Amino acid sequence: MSAPNRATLWGRILVDELAAGGLEAVCLAPGSRSTPLTVAFAEHPEIDVYSHLDERSAAYFALGRARRTGEPTALVCTSGTAAANFHPAVMEADQARVPLLVLTADRPSELRDSGANQTVDQVKLYGDAVRWDAELPDPEPDERKVRSLRTTAARALSETTGVPPGPVHLNCPFRKPLEPLEVPGDVPDSFAETASGRGRDGPFVETTGGTQTLAADDHRRLLGALEAADRPLIVAGPADPTTLGDLEPAAVTDLADRLGAPVLADPLSGLRFGPHVGREGGAAIDSEGGGDGMRNGKSRSIYGGYDTYIEELPTPDVVLRFGASPTSKPLRHWLRDADARQFLVDPAGAWREATFTATDLLAAEPRTVIDGLLEALGDADGDPDTDHGRPDAGWRARFDAAERRQWEIYDEALSADSLESEPFEGAILASVLSNAPDPATVFVSNSMPIRDTDRFARPRAADLTVLANRGASGIDGIASTALGAGSATDEPLVLATGDLSLYHDSNGLLAVDRCDVDATIVLLDNDGGGIFHKLPIEEFDPPFTDQFKTPHGLEFEDLAGVYDIEFERVTHANFAAAYRRSLEAAGTQLLAVEFDSEANHRRRDALAARVRTAVASDLETAGDGSN
Amino acid sequence: MSAPNRATLWGRILVDELAAGGLEAVCLAPGSRSTPLTVAFAEHPEIDVYSHLDERSAAYFALGRARRTGEPTALVCTSGTAAANFHPAVMEADQARVPLLVLTADRPSELRDSGANQTVDQVKLYGDAVRWDAELPDPEPDERKVRSLRTTAARALSETTGVPPGPVHLNCPFRKPLEPLEVPGDVPDSFAETASGRGRDGPFVETTGGTQTLAADDHRRLLGALEAADRPLIVAGPADPTTLGDLEPAAVTDLADRLGAPVLADPLSGLRFGPHVGREGGAAIDSEGGGDGMRNGKSRSIYGGYDTYIEELPTPDVVLRFGASPTSKPLRHWLRDADARQFLVDPAGAWREATFTATDLLAAEPRTVIDGLLEALGDADGDPDTDHGRPDAGWRARFDAAERRQWEIYDEALSADSLESEPFEGAILASVLSNAPDPATVFVSNSMPIRDTDRFARPRAADLTVLANRGASGIDGIASTALGAGSATDEPLVLATGDLSLYHDSNGLLAVDRCDVDATIVLLDNDGGGIFHKLPIEEFDPPFTDQFKTPHGLEFEDLAGVYDIEFERVTHANFAAAYRRSLEAAGTQLLAVEFDSEANHRRRDALAARVRTAVASDLETAGDGSN
Repeated sequence: MSAPNRATLWGRILVDELAAGGLEAVCLAPGSRSTPLTVAFAEHPEIDVYSHLDERSAAYFALGRARRTGEPTALVCTSGTAAANFHPAVMEADQARVPLLVLTADRPSELRDSGANQTVDQVKLYGDAVRWDAELPDPEPDERKVRSLRTTAARALSETTGVPPGPVHLNCPFRKPLEPLEVPGDVPDSFAETASGRGRDGPFVETTGGTQTLAADDHRRLLGALEAADRPLIVAGPADPTTLGDLEPAAVTDLADRLGAPVLADPLSGLRFGPHVGREGGAAIDSEGGGDGMRNGKSRSIYGGYDTYIEELPTPDVVLRFGASPTSKPLRHWLRDADARQFLVDPAGAWREATFTATDLLAAEPRTVIDGLLEALGDADGDPDTDHGRPDAGWRARFDAAERRQWEIYDEALSADSLESEPFEGAILASVLSNAPDPATVFVSNSMPIRDTDRFARPRAADLTVLANRGASGIDGIASTALGAGSATDEPLVLATGDLSLYHDSNGLLAVDRCDVDATIVLLDNDGGGIFHKLPIEEFDPPFTDQFKTPHGLEFEDLAGVYDIEFERVTHANFAAAYRRSLEAAGTQLLAVEFDSEANHRRRDALAARVRTAVASDLETAGDGSN
Repeated sequence: MSAPNRATLWGRILVDELAAGGLEAVCLAPGSRSTPLTVAFAEHPEIDVYSHLDERSAAYFALGRARRTGEPTALVCTSGTAAANFHPAVMEADQARVPLLVLTADRPSELRDSGANQTVDQVKLYGDAVRWDAELPDPEPDERKVRSLRTTAARALSETTGVPPGPVHLNCPFRKPLEPLEVPGDVPDSFAETASGRGRDGPFVETTGGTQTLAADDHRRLLGALEAADRPLIVAGPADPTTLGDLEPAAVTDLADRLGAPVLADPLSGLRFGPHVGREGGAAIDSEGGGDGMRNGKSRSIYGGYDTYIEELPTPDVVLRFGASPTSKPLRHWLRDADARQFLVDPAGAWREATFTATDLLAAEPRTVIDGLLEALGDADGDPDTDHGRPDAGWRARFDAAERRQWEIYDEALSADSLESEPFEGAILASVLSNAPDPATVFVSNSMPIRDTDRFARPRAADLTVLANRGASGIDGIASTALGAGSATDEPLVLATGDLSLYHDSNGLLAVDRCDVDATIVLLDNDGGGIFHKLPIEEFDPPFTDQFKTPHGLEFEDLAGVYDIEFERVTHANFAAAYRRSLEAAGTQLLAVEFDSEANHRRRDALAARVRTAVASDLETAGDGSN
C-alpha cells in the first residue's frame, strides 16, 4: 500500500482496515480537514459512499442504514461544529443500540486550544453516549503506529457491534497536505509492505465474540416459573437491530403456543408482522385451524391491539419480557400494576425497565433464552395446542375475544364515510400498514405516528420491517433515518411522518436525489404538535397555542419542490389509491393528508372508550372479567 | 410567589430570578418535559419569548441575539436529542465567547439510565464547551432548596458574562404534573414568601466583577516598546461581543495616530466600519486633512485592504494585537514570518494565537490597555500628527499607497461591464457592504462570503455592525444566527450567505415569520462548495465534484416559498437596485445571484495578482520596497 504523503497513507490504511473488517457503507459530508478520509473512502471499490450536505442528516441517514441492516455504517465529517451536528444521531444510536462508526477529522494536536480556525475540543465529544472512543495517532510512516492504527480501526468496528451494539467515535487529526499530493520522501517506497498490514485477507485482528447464554439449570428454573403460572405472558418490546433481530419469530410463537402465553407484540418488536402471524384482525388467517396453536407455521399467539383494551383484562402472574420498554403506555402501566414475577431478558444485562417492576434480570441473548426454554420443554411434549392444563385455561381466550372485538370496532370506524369530512390519522396509519406491500420497510415517526401505529396497526402475515427512532424518541432526523433504512434494501420504503418531524429534518429530503432512494412519504399534517392535545397543557392557552401546538402554516408543496419530490394532496377517500400508485411508481412521492389534531384527539379517545366498554362487557358476559 | 404545584413553582422561581438578573430574551422549542419552564417564561411580562421548532436553529438564533447585544439569551428545550441539537451553537458560543444560557429539561433522576422514554444522559452534555454547568435540585417547597435554586440561577446568568463570556448549561429535572395543575397541598400557601426570595429588587446574589487591568508600569513598558519601534502595527482581529465591543474606536485610532501605527482592521473587529473611519477607498474622507492623523474625529489609521497586498509590504517590528486570530490568512502568515515582538491582548488571558508568534501575552481588557497607553503617552504629547520621529518615517505611507492602489484597481474591476456576463462574488459582497444603510447589521456567512468581505469590503465611515460565526467557523446555523442578531435591533438586517449554508440552516428561515424579523438575504449561489476550488483537491476529480464541490441543484425559489419569503433572481447589473429596494421594503426578501465558482476563483486570483504586482511596483518605484 503506497501513498503520496502521510495523510493520504493514514486515510488509506484506515479505510482498508475497515473494509477488511466488513464495513460496507459510509456517509460523507464535504469538508477540507476530512479530505484524507473522503479520498480513501471514495476510491475504495467495496464501500458504498453516500454524500450528504448537512451533517445532522448524514448521521441520521447512517443510523437508518445501520438500523435496517444491523451492520455498522461509518460517518465522516470535517472538524468543528460539523462534529457536534452528529450528536443527536449518536445519542439515538446509543439508546437504540445501533452500530455507528463516527470518524471526525481534526486539526493536529498542536493547534488545539490555540484559537486556530475551525478547531474545537473534539476529544470525548459525545461523552458517555459512545461504546468506545479513541484518537488516532498523528500520521507517520512508522511500523508501530501502523499496527496501532489497524488495531484501532479493527477494534472500533468490532466495538460498534459489541453487546450492546452502539456508536463508536474515532477522532482523526490530519496535517496538510490533506490531498493526495506527492510529497517526496514523506512515505518511503519501502514502507508499502508495512502499510499493507499482515498481507492476508480479513481484518488485522479478528474478533470472535461469545454469546451470553444462561445455564441449562437457569432455563429449567425459568421454565418452571412459566409453567407454574396461571396467566403467563410474553411481552416483546422494540427490538434492537442485532439482538431481537436474531430471534426466530417461529421459535417465539412455538414457545408461546406451548406455554399458552399470549405474545403482546410491539409494532417495533419484529413480531407483530411477518409470515409467522396467524391472526389478522383478531380472526385466524387459516380458517381450518381450530385450536389456539400453530398451523402451517402460523401462530395465533401474536396480539397487537392491547394498547386500547389491555387495562380491561386481568393481569398476568408471570411475564417474560424481551426488547426495550413497550411503546404502549397503557401496557407499561398494566404491567406495572400487575402483581407478577417479571423476567426481563437483555443481552447486555441492561436495566431497561423504567417502571421498575422487573423482578428478575436475565443477562442473555433472547434467542438463546427461547432456544433454552424450548429445549427444556423437550420435543416429546406432545400436542402443541394443549394448554398444559393451567388452572386459568381461559386466559388466552380473553385476549382473543378482546382482540376480535377491538378490530371489529376499529374496522368499521376506520372505514366510516364520516371520515371524508373529518379525516382521522388513525385510519391513515392503519391503511399505511395494512396496505403496505409484502415485503416493505415502513418507517414511522415519533410523537403521534408511532402511537397510532401501535394502536391501529393490526398483526399481519406480511414481511414488514417496521422501524422508528425509539431510543431517545426525538422528532429530529426522521426523514434521513427512513431514507437511510431504505438505502439498504430493494424493498419499497414507506415513511409515515407528522408535519413537525418532516420540517425538522427537511434537509434530509436531499438524500432522495443525492442517495437515490425511492420512497413513499405519507405526511400527516395537523399543522403543529398534535400530541399536546393529549396533555393537560391543552387547558392552558396561552401558552398552549403559541408554545406547544405551534401552528406554522408551512407549505409542504413548496418543500417537495425544493427537493424535486412529487407532491400530492390526498384525502381520506383517495388515500389508499394514491398510496398504491405511489408504491408502484418510481421516484419519491409526498402524499399529504391534512388533519385537525384536536378533532382527531377527541375521536381517538371516543373510539378507545367504545372498545374498552365493549371488551369489558364481553368479559363480564363471559363471567371472568375479574383478575 | 405562589404556584399550583412544585414543578410550576420551580419554573417560576427560576425565571423570576433570571429576570431579576437582567435576562431579557429566551428562545423556546416546544416539548412536554420543559413545560414548567415554558409556562413560566411565557407568562413573564419582562422577557421576550421567541418560539422555534428546530432546536438547532433555536440555539443559533439565541446565539445571534446574544452576539448582537452582548447580553445573555436563554434557550429552553425538552429532554432527549433536543438537547444535543443545541450542541453546535453551544460550541460556537464557547469559541466566539457569546453569553448563552442553556436550560435543558430532564426526566427526574430516578428515571436515568432506566430505559425510560426520551431519557438520555444530559449531565455535562456539552463537555468543556460551557463555562459552567449544574443540575437543578428536584423541585420541592424547601427553604434551602429555594435559596440554592435562586443562587444557581443568578450564578448561571453571571457566568455567561464572565471573562470570557460563554455558554452555561443548567439541566432541569421535572416530575409530573408539568402543567400548572392544582395539586392540593403540594406547595403550602405559607411558602409563598420563601419562594419570593429576598423580597427586594435585583437578583438574589448581586455579582460585581473586576476588570483585568495592567499596572501603570506595564503600560509604560509596553508604550516604550511601541515607541521604540521602527515599524509599529496594531492588528484588530474579530471582536468578542462583550470585550472588544467595549472598545472606543476613537481611542484606538487616537493611539494609532500618536504612535504612527497603521491599524489593520478585520471586518469583524468593530473597527473597519464606523464614524471614526477617515479613509474610504484609500482616500481621505475629509479632503481638508493634510496629515496622517485625526481630523474631525476621523482617522486615516484604519486599513482594510491588507488581505490582498500585505505580503508585498515590509513586516512590522512591534505588533499590538487585539481580538481573535484575523480572518485573513495572508495577514496571519505575514505576521508569522515577521521578526517582531508581538503583544497579544486578551481579557481572559487566553492563548488565541495559532501561528505561535506572539512573544508577550497581556491578560487585560483591551479597553484598559488602550486607555493605559494613552495615559502613559500623556496629554502634553503635542501634535497628534507627528510620527514621533521614528526612523522609518515612511512606514505608514507605504500602507497608504498600497491601500490606494488596491481600491483603485478593485473599484474599476468590480464595476466592469464584463461582470454582467460572468458575475463576480467579490463585486456583490463589496456592494453589500458599501451600499448597506447607515446604520445596519450585516451578517456574513462562513466559507467564501467572509473571505470576500475581508478582501473586498473597504473601510467605511458608516455604523455597520458586521458579524459572522468565526468561533468555530461552521457553515451551519447561519440564517438563524443572522435572524437572531436582527431580532435585537431596529436597524436593517442583511445576511450574505452561500447556497450550502442557506441549505444547511434552511429551517432557520422559519424565524422570519415566527419571530417577525425583517431581513435582506443575499444568496451567493454557486451550486455547491465554491471554496474547494481554492484547495489542491480541485485537481483530483473524482472525488472533487461528488464529494467536495457537491453541486445539488437546489431550487431556492421554492425554499423561499416554504417560508413565505419574497424571492428575486438578480444579476450583477441590477443587484444594487434590488438590494436598495429590499432594504427599503418591509418583509424579508431573498435576492439570489448565481455564480460559476470556478470562474470566480480564477478571477479572484487574477485580480489579487494585479493588485500585488502594482503594489510591489509602486514600492519599488518609491525605493523602499525592501523590509
